[in-house]
Amino acid sequence: MSRGEFELIERYFTGLGARRPDVVLGVGDDAALLRPPPGCELVATTDTLVSGRHFLASIPPQSLGHRSLAVNLSDIAAMGAEPAWALLSLTLPAVDEGWLAEFAAGFAALASAHAVALIGGNLSRGPLAITVQLLGLAPAGAALRRYGARPGDSVFVTGTLGDAAAGLLVERGELAAAGADAASLIERYRRPTPRIAAGQLLRATASACIDISDGLYADVGKLAAASGCGVLLDVARLPLSAALLAAGGQRAQRLALAGGDDYELCFTVRPERVAALVSSWPAALCAVSCIGTATAERGVALANGTAADGAALQGYDHFRSH
Amino acid sequence: MSRGEFELIERYFTGLGARRPDVVLGVGDDAALLRPPPGCELVATTDTLVSGRHFLASIPPQSLGHRSLAVNLSDIAAMGAEPAWALLSLTLPAVDEGWLAEFAAGFAALASAHAVALIGGNLSRGPLAITVQLLGLAPAGAALRRYGARPGDSVFVTGTLGDAAAGLLVERGELAAAGADAASLIERYRRPTPRIAAGQLLRATASACIDISDGLYADVGKLAAASGCGVLLDVARLPLSAALLAAGGQRAQRLALAGGDDYELCFTVRPERVAALVSSWPAALCAVSCIGTATAERGVALANGTAADGAALQGYDHFRSH
Repeated sequence: MSRGEFELIERYFTGLGARRPDVVLGVGDDAALLRPPPGCELVATTDTLVSGRHFLASIPPQSLGHRSLAVNLSDIAAMGAEPAWALLSLTLPAVDEGWLAEFAAGFAALASAHAVALIGGNLSRGPLAITVQLLGLAPAGAALRRYGARPGDSVFVTGTLGDAAAGLLVERGELAAAGADAASLIERYRRPTPRIAAGQLLRATASACIDISDGLYADVGKLAAASGCGVLLDVARLPLSAALLAAGGQRAQRLALAGGDDYELCFTVRPERVAALVSSWPAALCAVSCIGTATAERGVALANGTAADGAALQGYDHFRSH
Repeated sequence: MSRGEFELIERYFTGLGARRPDVVLGVGDDAALLRPPPGCELVATTDTLVSGRHFLASIPPQSLGHRSLAVNLSDIAAMGAEPAWALLSLTLPAVDEGWLAEFAAGFAALASAHAVALIGGNLSRGPLAITVQLLGLAPAGAALRRYGARPGDSVFVTGTLGDAAAGLLVERGELAAAGADAASLIERYRRPTPRIAAGQLLRATASACIDISDGLYADVGKLAAASGCGVLLDVARLPLSAALLAAGGQRAQRLALAGGDDYELCFTVRPERVAALVSSWPAALCAVSCIGTATAERGVALANGTAADGAALQGYDHFRSH
């Protein structure tokens, strides 16, 4: 262990990600100085990844760097906001500079792609864990919320569901998949795609929005509860990838409902806006699929699915035993 | 383990700390929404406390809640800024609701005292660690930096030095102290006092400022290096508390130079401003002591001290082995 925290931060964290003119002072002082634009609200979120709980030890450090930022970007996406500045707290059992360089590269690539500047951070010794804090910007009053859905609204999701959960099972040896399918499912688990552009497009259209980190069933339930309504999901309409259908078979539907870590957006749209959303949505961005309807009756109900009780679908809670 | 993350966060984190009208949306959505005032710069910092490394398992949870916020407040103080909004990431080996309630109470008391609102957070299961991210505000262009000292500037510190390091030794049974002294030193270690008001006062006066977390010798060295100058410390003028003198004896000076965790401010002042600072400083706030001079020659030199080499005084680095 030849380098101290100060030197390591200088070496691996300075200038990481995008260069932004609104960063007055970045890594290297007691705190960073930032200049938010007038008329904006600040959007702030944080997420922690703990080794063995939120990722497997087998994850390549580049993917872990990507993932630790992606899960936070997903929260910013769910608010319809634009990401701007990140802080990174890394707790490592020992310094491995090769590992650090790869982790930083994975973090930096995703940060640069979304114009995020790393503005500060710290290194501690301890069991491997990563906490990222991400700050974003949204025009005042325009950010999306979890609440705002009304009975009759259509329920949509971006992308496909269940891939990440299947990828985790494949990685653990609990699900068999052909080579290309296995690779694509594992990639979806390790390197989720935050739906930043989709979230910003939805500011004009969605009545409520949440990102799916704990599984569709659990998270759409939170959106419904926050909105004071319920949701009826049409299980036959859940968007499933070819890889999930091939590998998951009869488990695919259940993985799409209960599996966590998809980091897709789930959102609601007033009936009169559905046609415009569907016809104007840029297909190149990602798919959007209508999967149900908001209801007056509270709770999450399922239509057209193999029956499963709600408790079994409650998805991943980082604080329960599994 | 009867409660999930969602419920625990609702129960212990919602509404913690001050109520601020600039919090548009706090704990409970994918991210918080904040409205920074016009004309301000945003000040952002984060610090992690890992069990066994940054605190002893014997620390009462109330003190740990205080301490995890205080170390971040200290960074905001060093910038001369006003703290505003905090995010809290807690990693716990198991849920102990009594522990959580006490931790939250300690955090909340200090947050309320400094008008800080807790706006978000997360709970994970894993080895005990706490990461806080703190956002503050400063008038544009007015924040203090580590750089800006010039040869001839006077070097000052707030409060007294070495108490926290002595407190840690007492707690570990490595230093004997009389009852009241022991209690006061341990308290200084467990519950540091962030110098928020002092930092804000210094905006008009200091040419550079840093908080002392890794020990005076190490941290004044960072201020000097960032400023492109050196520092000559008059060791005879280090402010030492009566408790430290009584318990530390011959070790007191060394603890004041090398001990970490004091969270006092070290700052420099142009010669022509020294008299005004000293005569107008509100004594009720905290002591300020002149302890040296900035020099053209790089590095940290010591006058009037028992000789000690720099390496031995480098203080606490959270990433080196001790």
